[in-house]
Amino acid sequence: MRIITISREFGSGGRELGKRLSDYLGFQYYDREIITAIAQESNMDSAYVESALEKPVWQIPAPTFRQSFATPGLFQGVQLDLLTMQRKVLEEIARKGEDCVIVGRNADVILSQHQPLSIFVCADMEAKLRRCQERAAADEQLTEKQMIKKIQEIDKNRAKVREMITGSKWGDRCAYDLIVNTSGWKIKELTPAVADYAIRWFNRT
Amino acid sequence: MRIITISREFGSGGRELGKRLSDYLGFQYYDREIITAIAQESNMDSAYVESALEKPVWQIPAPTFRQSFATPGLFQGVQLDLLTMQRKVLEEIARKGEDCVIVGRNADVILSQHQPLSIFVCADMEAKLRRCQERAAADEQLTEKQMIKKIQEIDKNRAKVREMITGSKWGDRCAYDLIVNTSGWKIKELTPAVADYAIRWFNRT
Repeated sequence: MRIITISREFGSGGRELGKRLSDYLGFQYYDREIITAIAQESNMDSAYVESALEKPVWQIPAPTFRQSFATPGLFQGVQLDLLTMQRKVLEEIARKGEDCVIVGRNADVILSQHQPLSIFVCADMEAKLRRCQERAAADEQLTEKQMIKKIQEIDKNRAKVREMITGSKWGDRCAYDLIVNTSGWKIKELTPAVADYAIRWFNRT
Repeated sequence: MRIITISREFGSGGRELGKRLSDYLGFQYYDREIITAIAQESNMDSAYVESALEKPVWQIPAPTFRQSFATPGLFQGVQLDLLTMQRKVLEEIARKGEDCVIVGRNADVILSQHQPLSIFVCADMEAKLRRCQERAAADEQLTEKQMIKKIQEIDKNRAKVREMITGSKWGDRCAYDLIVNTSGWKIKELTPAVADYAIRWFNRT
């Protein structure tokens, strides 16, 4: 079984790279499927699950269906439950034994015993901004300044969550096997370059 | 002209990777040649030149031939001269227009207008330690603890010098095009993986 994990900066094209890698290599692809599985298991809304798993404890609103009897202390409990479920879902994926690409979820650390190839995907702010602007919905009217703030905030939250779960810093240069800067690349062209590297990595002696 | 620059942690195998890349790709290779050129131009000992360019100002001893009339203030002047010469030597290399691999010297920043592929090479401390122990001279009797301290010190100095010269942090994950973790690789096997990535990078549209 070969597992490729993708951690990424918001707007870096990491998700697209993960998807294309899985297509190119014929690997299974896991991304939102993980959130969906946790949402089903926990009986919670998947948007809530996603937000709870991407933000540090103190920023999470009470889940709607519990709102009436929620206390601040409870939120931690809910998030811990979700993190435990996330771990379970990731371990179930690994148990299937299929080659796969997993985007996000700190899967590199949670599944470290399976020795995944862990890739971190980053890009210059200029490139991230362009990508975000291109894919922004027509009704999403953020100024450039607001967009930069959003990118920084999402990454800051991811960093905090990673630190809480793993004890290691997000984006640390030596916590990954490969860090790819997508600035100047078309993700489609980058895909075979990373795929070839990955194949050699799995075949190394 | 295609320039590949290699920055690296001490003990990561970055220099070996640079040399092998140049052989594999048929590129010119520059490493100690740069120090030699600066030493010739400055009429200084090459060991001194190397040390002066790898350490932040306040740690550099007075150059022997000036020792009699050196004052602490002068060291900065000497180092600045050496940095200027280093820039000149790097620019001369670029002016030749040949494909090349340059190891160290913050060449990625100094030659940024030539759009080099900038690679940072790192490794886990365990892997760096093993590599350093393997290549240590028989008469170099460092304990493991001393070796770790040496590795950390050299990298700390490189980081400081980079910050002084470039204003950007050494090893920052997004200051490079590619960060390669050599842990678990034989550099010989890693070479074609990085070379293929490099070729695709230069050919990207």
